[in-house]
Amino acid sequence: MQALRLLTRPSTLKARLSILALLAIGIFVGGGGIAYAQTASEVKETLDNAILVFAAALVFFMQAGFAFLGAGLIRSKNTVNYMTKSFLDFCIASLGFWAFGYALMFGGGAATGYIGLEGFFLANFSDGDLVNWLFQMVFAGTAATIIAGAMAERTKIDAYFAYSFVVGALIYPIYGHWAWSDAGWLATLGAGMSDYAGSGVVHMIGGMVALAGAMVVGPRIGFRKEGVELKGHNIPYVVIGTFILFFGWFGFNINSDTLGLNAVNTLLAGATGATAAIYVTLARTGKADIEMACNGALAGLVGITAPSAYVDPWAAVVIGLIAGVIMIFGVSFVKNILKVDDPVGAVTVHGICGAWGLLAVALFAAGNNGVSGLVKGDASLLVPQIVGILVAIAWGFGTGFILFKGLDLAMGLRASEEEEMEGLDMPEHGALAYPELQGLGSAPGTDD
Amino acid sequence: MQALRLLTRPSTLKARLSILALLAIGIFVGGGGIAYAQTASEVKETLDNAILVFAAALVFFMQAGFAFLGAGLIRSKNTVNYMTKSFLDFCIASLGFWAFGYALMFGGGAATGYIGLEGFFLANFSDGDLVNWLFQMVFAGTAATIIAGAMAERTKIDAYFAYSFVVGALIYPIYGHWAWSDAGWLATLGAGMSDYAGSGVVHMIGGMVALAGAMVVGPRIGFRKEGVELKGHNIPYVVIGTFILFFGWFGFNINSDTLGLNAVNTLLAGATGATAAIYVTLARTGKADIEMACNGALAGLVGITAPSAYVDPWAAVVIGLIAGVIMIFGVSFVKNILKVDDPVGAVTVHGICGAWGLLAVALFAAGNNGVSGLVKGDASLLVPQIVGILVAIAWGFGTGFILFKGLDLAMGLRASEEEEMEGLDMPEHGALAYPELQGLGSAPGTDD
Amino acid sequence: MQALRLLTRPSTLKARLSILALLAIGIFVGGGGIAYAQTASEVKETLDNAILVFAAALVFFMQAGFAFLGAGLIRSKNTVNYMTKSFLDFCIASLGFWAFGYALMFGGGAATGYIGLEGFFLANFSDGDLVNWLFQMVFAGTAATIIAGAMAERTKIDAYFAYSFVVGALIYPIYGHWAWSDAGWLATLGAGMSDYAGSGVVHMIGGMVALAGAMVVGPRIGFRKEGVELKGHNIPYVVIGTFILFFGWFGFNINSDTLGLNAVNTLLAGATGATAAIYVTLARTGKADIEMACNGALAGLVGITAPSAYVDPWAAVVIGLIAGVIMIFGVSFVKNILKVDDPVGAVTVHGICGAWGLLAVALFAAGNNGVSGLVKGDASLLVPQIVGILVAIAWGFGTGFILFKGLDLAMGLRASEEEEMEGLDMPEHGALAYPELQGLGSAPGTDD
Repeated sequence: MQALRLLTRPSTLKARLSILALLAIGIFVGGGGIAYAQTASEVKETLDNAILVFAAALVFFMQAGFAFLGAGLIRSKNTVNYMTKSFLDFCIASLGFWAFGYALMFGGGAATGYIGLEGFFLANFSDGDLVNWLFQMVFAGTAATIIAGAMAERTKIDAYFAYSFVVGALIYPIYGHWAWSDAGWLATLGAGMSDYAGSGVVHMIGGMVALAGAMVVGPRIGFRKEGVELKGHNIPYVVIGTFILFFGWFGFNINSDTLGLNAVNTLLAGATGATAAIYVTLARTGKADIEMACNGALAGLVGITAPSAYVDPWAAVVIGLIAGVIMIFGVSFVKNILKVDDPVGAVTVHGICGAWGLLAVALFAAGNNGVSGLVKGDASLLVPQIVGILVAIAWGFGTGFILFKGLDLAMGLRASEEEEMEGLDMPEHGALAYPELQGLGSAPGTDD
Repeated sequence: MQALRLLTRPSTLKARLSILALLAIGIFVGGGGIAYAQTASEVKETLDNAILVFAAALVFFMQAGFAFLGAGLIRSKNTVNYMTKSFLDFCIASLGFWAFGYALMFGGGAATGYIGLEGFFLANFSDGDLVNWLFQMVFAGTAATIIAGAMAERTKIDAYFAYSFVVGALIYPIYGHWAWSDAGWLATLGAGMSDYAGSGVVHMIGGMVALAGAMVVGPRIGFRKEGVELKGHNIPYVVIGTFILFFGWFGFNINSDTLGLNAVNTLLAGATGATAAIYVTLARTGKADIEMACNGALAGLVGITAPSAYVDPWAAVVIGLIAGVIMIFGVSFVKNILKVDDPVGAVTVHGICGAWGLLAVALFAAGNNGVSGLVKGDASLLVPQIVGILVAIAWGFGTGFILFKGLDLAMGLRASEEEEMEGLDMPEHGALAYPELQGLGSAPGTDD
Repeated sequence: MQALRLLTRPSTLKARLSILALLAIGIFVGGGGIAYAQTASEVKETLDNAILVFAAALVFFMQAGFAFLGAGLIRSKNTVNYMTKSFLDFCIASLGFWAFGYALMFGGGAATGYIGLEGFFLANFSDGDLVNWLFQMVFAGTAATIIAGAMAERTKIDAYFAYSFVVGALIYPIYGHWAWSDAGWLATLGAGMSDYAGSGVVHMIGGMVALAGAMVVGPRIGFRKEGVELKGHNIPYVVIGTFILFFGWFGFNINSDTLGLNAVNTLLAGATGATAAIYVTLARTGKADIEMACNGALAGLVGITAPSAYVDPWAAVVIGLIAGVIMIFGVSFVKNILKVDDPVGAVTVHGICGAWGLLAVALFAAGNNGVSGLVKGDASLLVPQIVGILVAIAWGFGTGFILFKGLDLAMGLRASEEEEMEGLDMPEHGALAYPELQGLGSAPGTDD
């Protein structure tokens, strides 16, 4: 019995039977048509499953993108800590989503539009269901890992692990049920909220929980202190992280009915977001800021996530452009107005630009895949999209705030001042990211 | 009849018969009907080929994962050496597999169940055969590169290149013939050994040859010396390596008939392996050890490789959990009981967890894709799986031992003590991994 | 004859005619027959689109490969600058290709064989067209980013951004029209120039523009000075870059009709190129030079790009072998004979080996996909291929020279000597790649 045996082709037996059937029925041909028809629909099903499995693999790989993007934007003394969180939050969230999340998100049962109640522990599912679980799982994992960045460099690891389970088991799936299950109350509100691939479900929820987490845990020592700059330690990590995320986004925004439209819109919005951000920083500071270009690309990608299946390519360019600009001002807003310390810009890129993506559907949807917005003279999506935004803020921030406050009381959320100064890597993990280098000259680290 | 034969095209004979039959039933229907009937089976064929080509690309990319995982776990002074091996062993093994390996593995000819003898140098193959060659080739390359880690930091490069050819041309394909060709003696033993995607064929063979290699070349200077810790130089490399490997595993364990089952089982086992390993280390040492989490993920992935098409998702969670725990104790076993120096844990992760994967089929196979184990009350796989494990140990370790002893006599396997102290990068490659940094402070390197 | 022609969909015209024919024959056959027949051809169309979208995602990811390959081969003080160029040239070129390039390359209108004139700003395109745009766009992006390496470490960023738009909007598409649009004058010259996936269109054009750029901007300070070695700062970047590029090449050389042939030829040529290059350097210097092995792999991959759909696997081995050797001598030729400073070897790997790829079609094409060369006794491709090479040199070098001279006059191409000594990262970007490390010991950087 070998691996490849299962990749069997249409049996020649079937083919022969088909030929006999064709001969027997004479002039009407019907039977033959059906035989092949069955094959054709089976092939389509396999194709759709294959597209989703490869897409899910790409979205899984985005975890590596988040790990490196974030690690590059923080100091080397917390790199092991950050990467451990970034990897394990996915693993732990996947167990939460397997046990509870998927049932709450897509299970029937209550069927009230507020929560699902069937399919815990992935029991009794068809292969098609498993493919959907997989695809939803990697989305849930994305939502989970967004938070790591906003809370980086000062959050204890055991509290963070506990959080990961809850976000995969409860927070992500319930909003997801509202927006993405057929009976969901947001999905059926008026013309129906439209969030194609998750500007709201994935990115806003991630970004709003991140905002709550960053507020509860508080800013890093030195945040907004005169003369102190808490800068990242590795620009190439930021770049590779962005490339991996961009690459994975082709899987994120996929649609087997309009493959070209989604991919083209994704590429154009990401490229435009980066270009807009770098020219704005060039104009403001005279420097071509690669961190801003990377975040600009991500802002464009987050912005196009909800509308990618609905808008025309020119609108993707506009959405990306605006997302890139929003991102630059959003980062200042979070830092200087909200006074929240978000080391990687997650609240802005995912939260604020996610809201922009939901709104953009109502503005630019051009009737593709049956969704129309203001550019087609249809204002019916404005209310559902705005309600979806407000609900995502309330649900994400609200549950996130309660969760992190609870974890803080139960097990303590914040590392000690001593650990924070030294870096979390040695005390929490017993390891340094670069043991041969840290401790040298100005390189932070321990002299352990 | 072997794995690859099943990827055969619809015979043109069949097509012709259909055409004739349909032509007979009337001129006006014939044309269109035939054209589409033919198309449906052709589409399925193209789809299966496309799935395998993209899957093979993912498995190819795992080479980068191995290169970085291993490099992160060794010292910077041997990084160029390790990466050169990791890249070139794939290249050279591919030439061995092209010239000889594939013919020995899947060629007919002798048809005795012990060895194939047709198809050297990939002559006269259809496009479907080429797809299969590609997929098998990237598997062979995986087996080859596993060994590099266990022998890292002290093995000469020319001996290592010679080894690579032999593993691709002989060692991997012959066990592969036994387990994966239709007539293979392991594939036909009792109920038939079941190794879906290669816990045995790829990982155990790789791990056992690695054990032989590590023993023949001997431990690094300082191994198990009081007060000496031979630690890796770069944790982010370990993390990116693991992410790339995990990503590639979605291609490794693929099955066009049950795409969802394989992918979900793969994800769950990998995630559970990582989670198990990190909680065990937290419980034992109080530290969240990212190296162990990464190896735990890989252990879970190796463990699910044989059973991924056969078990239910809950079993994937159990298999991953056990694999994560086995890995932690296996690493101690190899180091402290066998006293073998395996810098990256390859013997444990691939060899021991590969054996666990083969055994897990006999325990947990739930009748999916026609394979049942103890959970279904069927004990018939126990003997074939255990024989498969023992044969993999004997063949992998035995041929590996002979090969490396031979290479040692013929050309010398081990770098000189001086080269080992300095690091292999300058003497073997004339280059340092980080020429601007090495030589600074405590950073090992040369002052060349 | 263009790459995409081979991926053509079943014409909708045929589908419509068939439907009409079936409708005519009566009610009992019609319904079922049509419905399913339509499904079969729709499935094929979706499959072809899916293959191209995933392939395009892989080719997009090659941007990360170029970014890291190049960054590894230069000094850390210019790493931010290099990566910014490498990322933004893709983004900006994509806007040029969206606005103008695709229309010039594949639009009808003038239909003279020299230039297209329809489809600006991607207006009024079907989903299939969008898929094709996407695939062509990532090819254009590849051509654009090749130049960054040859001009690294001394070129100002604003001039470079301006160049990126022009290469995507004009230089790449016009040669592409000649070679790949149906009416293109190279595509219809004699037996028709055959460049399956772009050894000429993508790699030679990129390499020749790179040669012009490197000449116009002039060599780096210290180039070919006695006792000065301008060496790269990070070998692992070179390795990961090469792995990513190799991985992406499975998407580059794809063909839905002969998936196996293309992928196998790609793998074998890349592997052979690396093996050839490392054994040649071992023979010449006694050192296993990983940089040369990486460039050898890329040389083999560039060489197989034009012929991958036409030659048999043994020929891929030969083509890769020769490409690996050509690359080694090509690098010396460019440095010591042309006296051009190309820090990453882009001119050789893409320009010279691209020419070798075009020539190899005329030599080794074995009748696959309808193209035959000298090995089949057919010399008819020799003239078109050689003309294609000469035209690529003239067009790529000529337009590149004019463009960079113009940019030099308009905005200044070269960084000041002071900036070059300090590195471009602080003056142009206000950031260092590794702020914690640079400034230490022998590590170049600033003491900002």
